[in-house]
Amino acid sequence: MSRVVKKRKLDEIRQDRLYFDSYSDVTIHEEMIADHVRTNTYRMAILRNSESIRGQVVLDVGAGTGVLSIFCAQAGAKKVYAVEACSIAEQAMKIVKHNNMEDRIEVIRGTVETVDLPETVDVIVSEWMGYALLHESMLNSVLYARDKWLKPGGVILPSKAELYITPMIDPVVEDRLHFWYTVKDQYGVDMSCMCDFARKCVMNSDITVNSVTCEDVLSHPARFAELDLYSVTPEELRSVKGQFRCESFGSSAVNAFCVYFTVTFPCPDNTPPSLVLSTSPCKPETHWKQAVLYLDAPVEVVQDTPITGEVIMYPSEENARHICIHVDYSIGEQKQQSKTFSIPDWSSEAQS
Amino acid sequence: MSRVVKKRKLDEIRQDRLYFDSYSDVTIHEEMIADHVRTNTYRMAILRNSESIRGQVVLDVGAGTGVLSIFCAQAGAKKVYAVEACSIAEQAMKIVKHNNMEDRIEVIRGTVETVDLPETVDVIVSEWMGYALLHESMLNSVLYARDKWLKPGGVILPSKAELYITPMIDPVVEDRLHFWYTVKDQYGVDMSCMCDFARKCVMNSDITVNSVTCEDVLSHPARFAELDLYSVTPEELRSVKGQFRCESFGSSAVNAFCVYFTVTFPCPDNTPPSLVLSTSPCKPETHWKQAVLYLDAPVEVVQDTPITGEVIMYPSEENARHICIHVDYSIGEQKQQSKTFSIPDWSSEAQS
Repeated sequence: MSRVVKKRKLDEIRQDRLYFDSYSDVTIHEEMIADHVRTNTYRMAILRNSESIRGQVVLDVGAGTGVLSIFCAQAGAKKVYAVEACSIAEQAMKIVKHNNMEDRIEVIRGTVETVDLPETVDVIVSEWMGYALLHESMLNSVLYARDKWLKPGGVILPSKAELYITPMIDPVVEDRLHFWYTVKDQYGVDMSCMCDFARKCVMNSDITVNSVTCEDVLSHPARFAELDLYSVTPEELRSVKGQFRCESFGSSAVNAFCVYFTVTFPCPDNTPPSLVLSTSPCKPETHWKQAVLYLDAPVEVVQDTPITGEVIMYPSEENARHICIHVDYSIGEQKQQSKTFSIPDWSSEAQS
Repeated sequence: MSRVVKKRKLDEIRQDRLYFDSYSDVTIHEEMIADHVRTNTYRMAILRNSESIRGQVVLDVGAGTGVLSIFCAQAGAKKVYAVEACSIAEQAMKIVKHNNMEDRIEVIRGTVETVDLPETVDVIVSEWMGYALLHESMLNSVLYARDKWLKPGGVILPSKAELYITPMIDPVVEDRLHFWYTVKDQYGVDMSCMCDFARKCVMNSDITVNSVTCEDVLSHPARFAELDLYSVTPEELRSVKGQFRCESFGSSAVNAFCVYFTVTFPCPDNTPPSLVLSTSPCKPETHWKQAVLYLDAPVEVVQDTPITGEVIMYPSEENARHICIHVDYSIGEQKQQSKTFSIPDWSSEAQS
């Protein structure tokens, strides 16, 4: 395992190469397009906002295969600049041509921080959300584009992001740990003394990307941060934090926190319901799944046990594209605990 | 993805650190112990060979949690040296103590190439097999131990390894590629032109570790190599090769080769049936699954179409612990094709 690698600071150019390389493979694009919740919500949001888009100029930040750019052209955009840094841009060009939209969509290979557009834009669309919302730090690029290229009064799709936390029980982890007690019956060797070591390995300080089932969520979610994409600054993204308070539904062991996000699209004329892309464990699954943060050991709660604390999310010192999540928390009468979580180093490589 | 990293030659010490680190985490040990085919076959083989083990001295090469050492002690070994290079050795010590076997099992932390045993041994036991048998090159350590520590006439468990290849169809890959034709119906964007790019990405030159189902195997398996652990030399492991000839069961597309292995344990008094640990796709699944080698494009075959060629397995130049598989093959009337496969760089990191 890459503990050796993890300690080493990657220089920024190299970080960017690793990051953009991870999107060159088809798998991640297939996963994103096949994610119906993601792709359909963007499609509906773009079509619903067609009054803001029709006859206007759009910038798609991190366009990937160009699907959102095509939705914007279908919604009547006069011109779409589809900016994409990695080699998937070549596929986006083919797809745009294949859909006879070369006259309206211009795919530009480059980072949004370095490309030169011939004009400012009326609308920015971007699917920038990473695991736990902020992993990969792509929102910084959207804010850069906003400050440099968006006309005053322009529209950003989506326009708001919210972060939530809930206590949870992961029964799979408890089953995995129990396994060591079953070895004696299976093979005549008592391995129960492995359980402590196994708990240290499994309930470590990695941010684990996992599908959490709604039944394993132990309270109503607590929103701990909200980002208004019209006003949030890159400086504010260096530390996104907020307090939370939950009350347990009933008797259970808590062995983790679940962190997830929603993004909201602007509503023309503010006619509700607003369109929300939710990655809640109690909504249909998306490719983002949920971020699971394991405690060092399970804690028992009963109905209405208060679970309170503060979450701070910030970029890792070793790699600014990697997110860290620090949680200070108290469960019931327990004194305050702290744990800092980070995305394991291999994740960005393995996902491609 | 780490194409950047892949090109760089890792120095040997660093390679070893990465390799041994990958076994420090509990997950791989849990997976190995929970693999009933693996653990039960070793257990039965050790108990069946108890006549060779009772009252004798055993060396367990790469002992991990020490489970095979304990089986040997249960089979009556006078003394077992459990040599393990990575920190899981500490857990092995605890487990040995927990099972009251400290008098018979000595866990020694170190590589078998560097440890100093107080005596030569009568038996070597080792579970050294990696993906596609030879990935991780641990067999070299067993041969080193054999040449340095095994008494003349000593026993090696297992004593033989065999490699097999079969043509196969992976229908999941074909479904994945077909996905791009379905995007238009789902979202009104024609992405069928992505299919060629997707095929290049998916049917690449990685050795893919996957569970192959028996129905997707398209011929009887062809054995292309056999290693006798008593006589094979480290030099011979630098290029393990053999020819194969298969005949297709019926009409199908072939889009990959499947490579798998068996190991065989010695039979006391040569009383059959000999005990075989098989990773065949037509036998119960093991944690090794199968190694899948994708062709660049599917090829149609009919009943009895001959599929012939040669396989060469050798250590990667970048990292001697990583295996490469080169296949020269002809399918029916097709002229000979060649493709070289390797284990993707992140695999050893992701698996822990």
